[in-house]
Amino acid sequence: MNDSVFANVDGEIATVILNAPERLNALNKDSWLRLGDVMESLSANDDLRCIVLRGAGDKAFAAGADIKEFETERANAKLAKIYGELVAKTMSAVATCRHPTVAMIKGACIGGGLEIAACCDIRICGQSSRFGIPIKRLGLVMAHAELDMLLALVGRSRALEILLEGEIFGADKALEMGLVNRVVSDDQVETEAYAAAGRIAEGAPLTARWHKKFALRLMEPEPLSDAERDEGYACFDTADFKAGVDAFVAKKKPKFSGK
Amino acid sequence: MNDSVFANVDGEIATVILNAPERLNALNKDSWLRLGDVMESLSANDDLRCIVLRGAGDKAFAAGADIKEFETERANAKLAKIYGELVAKTMSAVATCRHPTVAMIKGACIGGGLEIAACCDIRICGQSSRFGIPIKRLGLVMAHAELDMLLALVGRSRALEILLEGEIFGADKALEMGLVNRVVSDDQVETEAYAAAGRIAEGAPLTARWHKKFALRLMEPEPLSDAERDEGYACFDTADFKAGVDAFVAKKKPKFSGK
Amino acid sequence: MNDSVFANVDGEIATVILNAPERLNALNKDSWLRLGDVMESLSANDDLRCIVLRGAGDKAFAAGADIKEFETERANAKLAKIYGELVAKTMSAVATCRHPTVAMIKGACIGGGLEIAACCDIRICGQSSRFGIPIKRLGLVMAHAELDMLLALVGRSRALEILLEGEIFGADKALEMGLVNRVVSDDQVETEAYAAAGRIAEGAPLTARWHKKFALRLMEPEPLSDAERDEGYACFDTADFKAGVDAFVAKKKPKFSGK
Repeated sequence: MNDSVFANVDGEIATVILNAPERLNALNKDSWLRLGDVMESLSANDDLRCIVLRGAGDKAFAAGADIKEFETERANAKLAKIYGELVAKTMSAVATCRHPTVAMIKGACIGGGLEIAACCDIRICGQSSRFGIPIKRLGLVMAHAELDMLLALVGRSRALEILLEGEIFGADKALEMGLVNRVVSDDQVETEAYAAAGRIAEGAPLTARWHKKFALRLMEPEPLSDAERDEGYACFDTADFKAGVDAFVAKKKPKFSGK
Repeated sequence: MNDSVFANVDGEIATVILNAPERLNALNKDSWLRLGDVMESLSANDDLRCIVLRGAGDKAFAAGADIKEFETERANAKLAKIYGELVAKTMSAVATCRHPTVAMIKGACIGGGLEIAACCDIRICGQSSRFGIPIKRLGLVMAHAELDMLLALVGRSRALEILLEGEIFGADKALEMGLVNRVVSDDQVETEAYAAAGRIAEGAPLTARWHKKFALRLMEPEPLSDAERDEGYACFDTADFKAGVDAFVAKKKPKFSGK
Repeated sequence: MNDSVFANVDGEIATVILNAPERLNALNKDSWLRLGDVMESLSANDDLRCIVLRGAGDKAFAAGADIKEFETERANAKLAKIYGELVAKTMSAVATCRHPTVAMIKGACIGGGLEIAACCDIRICGQSSRFGIPIKRLGLVMAHAELDMLLALVGRSRALEILLEGEIFGADKALEMGLVNRVVSDDQVETEAYAAAGRIAEGAPLTARWHKKFALRLMEPEPLSDAERDEGYACFDTADFKAGVDAFVAKKKPKFSGK
């Protein structure tokens, strides 16, 4: 398997792997393209209920953008905009994926890697994982679309602390900042990430997709349309709602079909 | 007293009681209606300075919406919309009540109960209280108006963690998430909730109402009008401002009239 | 030096001192004016890379607005509006200063002092520092422009907790609320504040200014223009970007010119 990003599907749960361990899974143009394509393809797959994003190996989720390409693909503002729009498109594909996403973070979660994690719905990391966006050392700026995801997650003050000081910091600080949902011991990261994915996959899949869709929508300032408001009640016409209530009444575990 | 929701007024502090201990204070259509009515009536009462919301007994704030009504009042999308609009109206009555509100949380604070608590201004809970919105098991979705209150309180990532994983979690996790303002030992919940209400009631009541009104208003994306901006200075023409400054200068405790 | 607010410039780092230790650095009309002027003047200085804001002495960052002026400058709504617009203009000068700002907090950080700190990008405080906005005792209201900064920092529930209960609270509670970025031991506040300023000053100055500018801009609900989006890539045409990448490749410390 030589792909820089690839997916494994195991039943209702897919795993997306950032796969360039020789450069701590740093993303180059090819990786950004593939990550976007993989996320779009998984998003369209009705059989899925959760996607876990992870880096290959134990040393990194992803260490950022591949530095080699700064002198080629991002050598000036014009080229950098083309590159940046590709990154933004991929980030959007991660953030708007229909299925819930869990970032499973071991080791370095830096720069573009941290941005990908920020686009996921839930972030679970190991005690020794490390975070940061040290681009002040490169004279580099996060474009608006990328910065917006960070602001949505940790707020203006924490985002500026990360960007202005440019420090690399640990898991406890990441939790304090609201950058991750949960810190576990290093040998439990995989177990906890798939346990979370399992809990998500057990739930009604349409419910998960609607909650994710509505939460994203409510971040936008435009008022809701009547049709959008009505979609808040569409679940009551689904087979899964009936299955859920029946199982609750019968004190059984529900079995959802996604219909 | 057989009402499913009722209020006790004690001087400047009212207590609203979700009163269905036989079902852990879960709310049915009648409770939602009554809660809305009670809040609107208290909101109009100029003599009040703070409202404490609580569940009857020690076992629950409220365990959610009454499951029995899923098969009657919420049997399909059309009926559910009518029910949902009633819930949204009640939530709005809690959130926009002129007087400050304190949710006093013991035991289960689940589903619709958690939503009501989220509409209050301050949440104080006991160490053994439990939180969650496990509607992924029912194939049920939080409509936009309800989800919006949760997002405003804990942000997108924490809201999705709560909804997608559907776990029941404890007070420390709730504090970490920003879901509650304060955790105290179980036997101190009542003491601390009424101490907070007392601190609020001691303050100038118009000040409290303006702060609450402005904070809600600033959550909306529409720009402020000149008249709205001017209201930010209306306090300087009140008798209470003069009473407050006089008391400060005289190093006495101020006595406010709400005028 | 008798100025109520003044600045010391030491290389790339300026220090702004709220200087009225006889009243715990409480701000009067003259101080608000001077603080606004000082910040605007420093903002225009291209040689700067970071500004530290602090109070004179160890007892206070600033204890609020000078109480004496309540009976003169703020005796009624009309006068208070003039005063309030001056405060808002100064707050805006702090918040929109081109250079990153670090609030170094010792002792009392109360009322207007807390508002100034909230307008800074990063807040570092000592273990024994104290926070609060106890204006409920005065019958006084925070106008919208001031409240907005507090809401952006800690959210609606924490802001209302601070304003409605009106308590004075310590550094750990401030950290829990998200009111400060970092708590250190009292004798380390100065060291840590200037270490943070040093880390910021080491980075590319245009990068810092753009990040700050973009983060403020993204708080506004208006959609970005194409020109604004393009500014997200302008860094790639700077000399500092080339210097940063070259230094990275050469494994040397970059030297930035701000060009």
